Amino acid sequence: MTFRATILTLYPDMFPGPLGHSLAGRALAEAKWTLDAINIRDSATDRHRTVDDTPAGGGAGMVLRADVVARALDAIADGRPVLAMTPRGRPLTQRRVRDLAAGPGAIVLCGRFEGFDERLFEARAIEEVAIGDYVLSGGEMAALVLLDACVRLLPGVMGAASSGDEESFESGLLEYPHYTRPNEWEGRTIPDVLRSGDHAKVAAWRKRRAEDDTRLRRPDLWERHVGARVGRPLARSDEEGRS
Amino acid sequence: MTFRATILTLYPDMFPGPLGHSLAGRALAEAKWTLDAINIRDSATDRHRTVDDTPAGGGAGMVLRADVVARALDAIADGRPVLAMTPRGRPLTQRRVRDLAAGPGAIVLCGRFEGFDERLFEARAIEEVAIGDYVLSGGEMAALVLLDACVRLLPGVMGAASSGDEESFESGLLEYPHYTRPNEWEGRTIPDVLRSGDHAKVAAWRKRRAEDDTRLRRPDLWERHVGARVGRPLARSDEEGRS
Repeated sequence: MTFRATILTLYPDMFPGPLGHSLAGRALAEAKWTLDAINIRDSATDRHRTVDDTPAGGGAGMVLRADVVARALDAIADGRPVLAMTPRGRPLTQRRVRDLAAGPGAIVLCGRFEGFDERLFEARAIEEVAIGDYVLSGGEMAALVLLDACVRLLPGVMGAASSGDEESFESGLLEYPHYTRPNEWEGRTIPDVLRSGDHAKVAAWRKRRAEDDTRLRRPDLWERHVGARVGRPLARSDEEGRS
Repeated sequence: MTFRATILTLYPDMFPGPLGHSLAGRALAEAKWTLDAINIRDSATDRHRTVDDTPAGGGAGMVLRADVVARALDAIADGRPVLAMTPRGRPLTQRRVRDLAAGPGAIVLCGRFEGFDERLFEARAIEEVAIGDYVLSGGEMAALVLLDACVRLLPGVMGAASSGDEESFESGLLEYPHYTRPNEWEGRTIPDVLRSGDHAKVAAWRKRRAEDDTRLRRPDLWERHVGARVGRPLARSDEEGRS
């Protein structure tokens, strides 16, 4: 089964963009995944190809019309998950990325302006997703991030050597720090244990560093990690699957 | 003062990419900001232009050498903040975006493979930044997100009509939902209050929806919002400026 991504956007020329390079680009060329970008404007029905209108209740900016976006979506809906990239969405997690990568692909809605008419989310099964607690000029950058995160996990894309099992967030922890040659640089040396050849000691050091760094840098992740281990309920917004 | 972005990357061809379109692209063409992408490989010193080596202590993948990356960085360092995009970093917030956008620009390091030799962060003043709790194929997508978030806030880019004051995260809350014409769509109507013409009622409704939606969708944000209002200390990883 090939992972198929379809983007609904006002800027189809942004795709594949950076996804046409490096790991994702090679996988795209090898048809390990597919990418289509469809212009929402093609689903407008008036001669001006209008997709937006002013916000009800007043205020700055423009709002994407529910009827136009729904028409674009209905024309391609085929059972794949439908995600809308919006700051009001559920924060994206590595767990959700992994689930998506194991599925048939995704239809991704990219907002612009003030966002979508809220009725779209009431009338269609759409998962609102936020990639972080900041605001972008549109959903396109967020869609690129989402797809990059998914595509690297597809079979054969990273290769067996980098399965990603030890990466940040896979175990609920940050990854341990890395070192490489030269052994001494500006008076700083690689920690002795990493050059000891003692695999058990290396593994123990890495585990401790992953835990220490998570506790220090991300107390929020650490609390969830400890909570999960002792069976406490997880915070809804972060660890639960899609409701 | 023009906002100047310099990217250190192994894939300079990924830039400007999507930042060459739409809002950011127009601002780039109008020289409201500048973007340079420099290949880290240009700072290698051997004839193979080596930038990476195997991880000390063993394991999959490759690690970017501290000496090569530091040489690339030292050649361009000029007092602008230096950010490295890495999942081990501090989560990016709208507050940090706004601070960066008010400054002279940024130098952005994009990791690949297993990341940077940790000694780089001990030896240079580098802010490690994560755009979310998921793993990307490299720092390039994260750099695009960071710059898109900054550029839209630069003077004259969005225009006075969309100052961003009411957006998600600016007040510590998600933004209220939006509606636009048609008034009725698939049997669903725009909430009456938004068509009442009563500005005070509209403002009150939007405030309540922003609060309700934040409490329901993002209890983590809501707790910080309430905590901040009653003067409780904020969590270090989320709200504090760079230490």
